[in-house]
Amino acid sequence: MKIALAQLNYHIGNFEANTQKIIRTAQDAAKQHADLVIFAEMAVCGYPPRDFLEFDDFITRTEQAIAEIAESCFDIPVILGAPVRNTGSKGKALYNAAIFLHEGKQQIFRKALLPDYDVFDEYRYFEPAQAFDCLSFKGKKVAVTICEDLWNISENPLYFNQPMESLILEKPDFIVNIAASPFDYRQAAVREEVLQNNVRKYKIPLIYVNHVGAQTELLFDGGSMVISENAEVHKRMDFFKEGLTIFNLETDFSKPKSVLELPSKMELIHQALVMGIRNYFEKLGFKKAILGLSGGLDSALTMALAAEALGAENVFAVLMPSQFSSDHSIKDAVDLAKNLGSPYETIAIEPLYKSFKTQLEPLFSGKPDDVTEENIQARARGLLLMAISNKFGYILLNTSNKSEAAVGYGTLYGDMNGGISVLGDVYKTEAFELARHINKDREIIPENTIVKPPSAELRPVQKDSDSLPDYAILDAILYAYIEQRKGPETIIGEGFDEKTVRRVLRLVNQNEYKRHQTPPILRVSPKAFGMGRKMPIVAKYLI
Amino acid sequence: MKIALAQLNYHIGNFEANTQKIIRTAQDAAKQHADLVIFAEMAVCGYPPRDFLEFDDFITRTEQAIAEIAESCFDIPVILGAPVRNTGSKGKALYNAAIFLHEGKQQIFRKALLPDYDVFDEYRYFEPAQAFDCLSFKGKKVAVTICEDLWNISENPLYFNQPMESLILEKPDFIVNIAASPFDYRQAAVREEVLQNNVRKYKIPLIYVNHVGAQTELLFDGGSMVISENAEVHKRMDFFKEGLTIFNLETDFSKPKSVLELPSKMELIHQALVMGIRNYFEKLGFKKAILGLSGGLDSALTMALAAEALGAENVFAVLMPSQFSSDHSIKDAVDLAKNLGSPYETIAIEPLYKSFKTQLEPLFSGKPDDVTEENIQARARGLLLMAISNKFGYILLNTSNKSEAAVGYGTLYGDMNGGISVLGDVYKTEAFELARHINKDREIIPENTIVKPPSAELRPVQKDSDSLPDYAILDAILYAYIEQRKGPETIIGEGFDEKTVRRVLRLVNQNEYKRHQTPPILRVSPKAFGMGRKMPIVAKYLI
Repeated sequence: MKIALAQLNYHIGNFEANTQKIIRTAQDAAKQHADLVIFAEMAVCGYPPRDFLEFDDFITRTEQAIAEIAESCFDIPVILGAPVRNTGSKGKALYNAAIFLHEGKQQIFRKALLPDYDVFDEYRYFEPAQAFDCLSFKGKKVAVTICEDLWNISENPLYFNQPMESLILEKPDFIVNIAASPFDYRQAAVREEVLQNNVRKYKIPLIYVNHVGAQTELLFDGGSMVISENAEVHKRMDFFKEGLTIFNLETDFSKPKSVLELPSKMELIHQALVMGIRNYFEKLGFKKAILGLSGGLDSALTMALAAEALGAENVFAVLMPSQFSSDHSIKDAVDLAKNLGSPYETIAIEPLYKSFKTQLEPLFSGKPDDVTEENIQARARGLLLMAISNKFGYILLNTSNKSEAAVGYGTLYGDMNGGISVLGDVYKTEAFELARHINKDREIIPENTIVKPPSAELRPVQKDSDSLPDYAILDAILYAYIEQRKGPETIIGEGFDEKTVRRVLRLVNQNEYKRHQTPPILRVSPKAFGMGRKMPIVAKYLI
Repeated sequence: MKIALAQLNYHIGNFEANTQKIIRTAQDAAKQHADLVIFAEMAVCGYPPRDFLEFDDFITRTEQAIAEIAESCFDIPVILGAPVRNTGSKGKALYNAAIFLHEGKQQIFRKALLPDYDVFDEYRYFEPAQAFDCLSFKGKKVAVTICEDLWNISENPLYFNQPMESLILEKPDFIVNIAASPFDYRQAAVREEVLQNNVRKYKIPLIYVNHVGAQTELLFDGGSMVISENAEVHKRMDFFKEGLTIFNLETDFSKPKSVLELPSKMELIHQALVMGIRNYFEKLGFKKAILGLSGGLDSALTMALAAEALGAENVFAVLMPSQFSSDHSIKDAVDLAKNLGSPYETIAIEPLYKSFKTQLEPLFSGKPDDVTEENIQARARGLLLMAISNKFGYILLNTSNKSEAAVGYGTLYGDMNGGISVLGDVYKTEAFELARHINKDREIIPENTIVKPPSAELRPVQKDSDSLPDYAILDAILYAYIEQRKGPETIIGEGFDEKTVRRVLRLVNQNEYKRHQTPPILRVSPKAFGMGRKMPIVAKYLI
């Protein structure tokens, strides 16, 4: 039996594009004599469709798309993911389903385990399945499962149910798992381990088909695979690329496997961010980006990634020096733009700053300068960037990193502006590593940008380390609190300075209001700010 | 048996304040010889604690608070809500529980039905209870339930389970329901109906205790009540006010009931918004608000509400006219500030606008004016307001209404700025009604502000109706799409112009990126923008 794995990039709600892509790929698989072609979870409507699922019209369009696919793929059997209606009198309105389409008939397999943690909220929409049957097809029995259905095999299972325990009783020949499993830098390894553990337990081959492509903040890395009954990954599709692979279950397992090692953390993050930027622009129908280039690490890194994603000629850099900008900052920024071959312009902000000071003079008279004046500079820059963005139809890239976003070291409506945040899930210490990784073959990001002490340059001889702990310490505390959800006592117990820990945690919680208004952040870690971290704003925990 | 209903305003994560308030109230009830005092769902930690629930430290502090309450209330039996750990080997880490505290002992009752729609995401954190027992206490049996546990009595139940069907077998004497049921303008009526339907079915009295107070966008209206076994609301506590009520189950039902009619929609919205503003400031520890006062309806309404919430002297209005501002706008704005007795200042934005134009001239030369120039004005205003906010420690109030937020009629980082959005869940047509309601006794909002045609005044003789349909039509289409989740065909089928409908729906979906970066919005409707409406940003549905 020849199985085609279709690893595709879908566009949420773009039924026409998704349908045509599915039909084209299925026909391609048919030409290659596949017996079955498998598409990912929720392929028809894209994932995550979120509250569009509450619109009857959205479900109707999904059904129409499925009908069109069924008609166009009469001859090639298809498994694909889509929401289907719950026709019973109880429970939520929908199921998350895998649909087997063949010769005009539809057979439905429902998802039982609905993830509702981090970025997932599937129980918001779907009723969990309670009954399970295998697919019988060309003399084979197939255990058709959907993503989380296979993830309940730890010693402390999150769900009481375990669909494979029912399905295995029918003695299936292999498992199919269609997924929408988003990327983070450790997910490829975790995912492989979980799937292999299933094979170790149930001792039949497994075919896994994932999404690829970015859906705003959620990045899907693909990595669809075939695991042999002895739990070896025999075939793995490319990360971050669309593709169609045909695997012959009878003959290909006896051929030598060719599975590359998992890429390094920085290589994964690099590819993920480039895809994230590229897809954000493509799916919105935009070509060009703009960003403020300060000469510092974060904007340099953002620009290098954007140039790779969109083409250097499509990234417009604006240098906006003030009286506090150092000469090397301007030089470093210009060097980067020249290295990349991107257009850039310089606009001084001092006249703007002075205008604001003049207009505010009657109100502010006698008050000493403070953070207000720093914010005016950051906001004047933000305003200039948005004006250019509006005038030319460019999208502004946000350049804040995760460490800054965490402690609120940034100006709301200033440098926190943007359509998408490229580095908002990359700690400052990781940003250095990523810059080194990008520079591994040649100097793209100027060396001086990487080695000089980080500074916002909003007042004379300012350095980040004046107001924040060293980034190595800050990031370690942030990781313990944000990724690991450790409390202050635990973190202090690990040897960090008590005062620093309490201050950092207070800053994180106090600045929830800022993060509430930031752009979506490309998610690369197991716990990113954004849809996967839901916090109260007006609270008093650790504050 | 004398039951004390404690309707209190909690602060999320503020264990010390919540604990002291609970203890004080319980002792007050004891003094009044109550046999039992009942606090709301999740009273100990505040509701919704959201992802704080994932922090072991947060749960430990909850447990410490409960222990302190148990000790301080040794003599008065207490029911209160809190998260408790799941000590089993399967399922989510926590239960949402009601805890009965008496003489140092704790008895736990777990929530079975976990809402996971609109603003709720309880399945993210909690394992649903599967087994149910009544509380036995002073010779009575009590069916202790938590909020949603009583909401599954329609003909198409959302949940397969129905805890009261088990509990009623023990022949309880009455039902207790502790709740965290947020306000919307129809919720008080819906809630009463649902609770009465329970009593009609189970034929025993019901005691209902709700939260009161604002938790950022979520507003809790209280309205705790006692329903007699013949399904009459016999006692209802005040809306939007803390209080303690003692009800004698043996004697008080025979006394005449004194239950006021539910307030009107506008009266409810009015009170809810005032409470929302007041609590936002109080819980953050701020006293003073700032806002831009344009002379238009939305900023006038916001200011009137803020003056009521914070005191007129604590609301600072800034008039920022441009060359496009009409004389009447300035006069109307000044009239309002004087009516209220609030401080105000005027700052012209033309010099700022000209500075930006000058700095951008080399880049923009030859390009005609467009929305860019309108946005520069809005953003210069936003920058001024934020500068004053930073300098004096005021919080900026956002003044956008729901109609604007829906179609993206507003400038990101300009008039969409603010710590909290007061009117973001109030359609423009409702804003007119609310202004009339506020003016019912005397003219607070100048008549001219209410009757003149709405305009953003960002270009000469601009009117909202130049670029948007009439608000009556716009709001009707928005309501059908947002609140009722109707699709375009259905709305067109109801008689609206096809082109207008398609344009409005496209605008709503296209502007998701703007709403992603707006302040939290005080929620007064059944479907507000914010935590209860989760939409993809990069999607192509109806666009």
